[in-house]
Amino acid sequence: MARRPTIADVAQLAGVSRATVSFVLNDRPGVAAATQERVRAAAGQLGWTPSRSARALSTGRARAVGLVLTREPDLIGTDPFFPAFMAGIESVISESGDGLMLHVTSPRNEMDTYRRLVDDQRVDGVFLTDLRVGDPRPELLRELGLPAVAVGADDGVEGIATVNLDDRPVVAGAVHHLVGLGHRHIAYVAGPAEYLHAQRRLGAWRDALAEAGLPQGPVLPGGFTAEGGALATQALITRGDRPTAIVYANDLSATAGMAVAQEAGLRMPDDLSVVGFDDVPLASWTRPSLTTCRADAASWGRAATRALIETIEHGTTPHVELDPAALMVRDSTGPAPARP
Amino acid sequence: MARRPTIADVAQLAGVSRATVSFVLNDRPGVAAATQERVRAAAGQLGWTPSRSARALSTGRARAVGLVLTREPDLIGTDPFFPAFMAGIESVISESGDGLMLHVTSPRNEMDTYRRLVDDQRVDGVFLTDLRVGDPRPELLRELGLPAVAVGADDGVEGIATVNLDDRPVVAGAVHHLVGLGHRHIAYVAGPAEYLHAQRRLGAWRDALAEAGLPQGPVLPGGFTAEGGALATQALITRGDRPTAIVYANDLSATAGMAVAQEAGLRMPDDLSVVGFDDVPLASWTRPSLTTCRADAASWGRAATRALIETIEHGTTPHVELDPAALMVRDSTGPAPARP
Repeated sequence: MARRPTIADVAQLAGVSRATVSFVLNDRPGVAAATQERVRAAAGQLGWTPSRSARALSTGRARAVGLVLTREPDLIGTDPFFPAFMAGIESVISESGDGLMLHVTSPRNEMDTYRRLVDDQRVDGVFLTDLRVGDPRPELLRELGLPAVAVGADDGVEGIATVNLDDRPVVAGAVHHLVGLGHRHIAYVAGPAEYLHAQRRLGAWRDALAEAGLPQGPVLPGGFTAEGGALATQALITRGDRPTAIVYANDLSATAGMAVAQEAGLRMPDDLSVVGFDDVPLASWTRPSLTTCRADAASWGRAATRALIETIEHGTTPHVELDPAALMVRDSTGPAPARP
Repeated sequence: MARRPTIADVAQLAGVSRATVSFVLNDRPGVAAATQERVRAAAGQLGWTPSRSARALSTGRARAVGLVLTREPDLIGTDPFFPAFMAGIESVISESGDGLMLHVTSPRNEMDTYRRLVDDQRVDGVFLTDLRVGDPRPELLRELGLPAVAVGADDGVEGIATVNLDDRPVVAGAVHHLVGLGHRHIAYVAGPAEYLHAQRRLGAWRDALAEAGLPQGPVLPGGFTAEGGALATQALITRGDRPTAIVYANDLSATAGMAVAQEAGLRMPDDLSVVGFDDVPLASWTRPSLTTCRADAASWGRAATRALIETIEHGTTPHVELDPAALMVRDSTGPAPARP
């Protein structure tokens, strides 16, 4: 066949209207099953396939959502938030056959990457993660008219859908748990200061200590990495006034911290209590098992995807508040040791 | 400006030929830096942006590569291979600003997903992972004319580029390491049988035992998960003829297995030696630290991406053999206990 078959050809062969063919081939509801079958059979017989631009015109959809990470590519493999978040996204979009367009970019190319996603009509909307202080992206996206959902944007972002999970209560809960066990000297190993969620967790730790009338323990950077957690822990346990408990900004740094402390002869939780954040799959399987805050990144991914689809399809900007993270008390926390 | 600016407009303003503009705006080499700057300045001044179809026509490129996973979406968050592999892909494509289109699909929709990627011109090529026995995808991709690279296709795939890493030598090395430590009763906790790489690792364990003149120990399924590893370990350590060493198909099941064994009062490596596979970031930070096989999924991702780009740009089908995985001997393996 020299000419590419059109929707009109399919309609004629199936004996239905062109609108019906368009409905069926774009997976829209409201057509009887038998008719759907006839249309698909006719399309198959003619070898009809939608061209990308024809599909974009008929459905107004690129059938993909975008995630632009301004991060080192390595972090996809080491920060457990992203794989779990992407799994949540895929669990929703895979139902309709849509795809996730993933870009890792540098700060210099970040704005261009968003512009190109729009110019090339590659995506119907994007997830905004890792919101920063003074983040220029929300304004750009409003300018570009690209639907977006901000993930973990505490105070909301004007004109953009948001999905939040307040992780302050669970950090406060972790501090209360430690205070209840008699700890008075509680240190913190922080994530990178440029991330709002890292700042928020640190702030919650500070506020909870103040509320309990306790002095603020030492704060060391852990960079969300195993190596950072190990170095910070080494510094903390060799201090003259060694803390009896350490709260870590994520599980990776907490687990490395536990290993360093054990290596130094400290028993957990007898000599030192440890709390993480994330509840990675391995957190229940370290020894001792890790007391941590379950943020459930996959449910963030699912909720953010549903909010983004709502924005794309109806132009609304929903604000979704997820259930707060839960404290998973395991064996790495226990009564504070008696002071020597 | 009512009319969308064209390449001709940019060429006129910059005082160069249209071909030069096209070269510069498509990031192709061979144009002097000063000329490049003039073209970009002119394009910026006119607000020129390539339309997606114009770009596809001018470069013949969608500027994206595809990864279709026929898996449960959850596995992206739990199997550490994929995040690390994607990090490797991104570390190469992010240099040129290309994206990764990720689809998670069901066995029923798998073929359609590949067809749509081609029909919609969404990607320039795809990665084929998780090759299965009797896999129908290589033939489909040859039919569709979609460039592809098969990852971990042991015996090669006709007409398709391949990137392999032979993980049999390192599994054999792990068995020899255990045999050298006096172990004679070595069990295996396997990955899902439908995956070629899971079968390959199991086969290597079998062959190495046979070569050492030892009987084949029990084989239990672990499903590549923590829960599967825990259940298999529970069954193995409560047997009358308890193995003195267990080789696991991945680190997640090995770490959970260690926790179960410790819970049951076994000391490691005194009572039981354990070997994993992957070398996840946490493997050096479990207690005891985990002896495991470092497959370096990120380097697979990088090598596969380079091979795919070569296929896309030159139509060649390179076959790349990566350096074999390395055995990382840590504290979870030691001399076999004396038999009671």
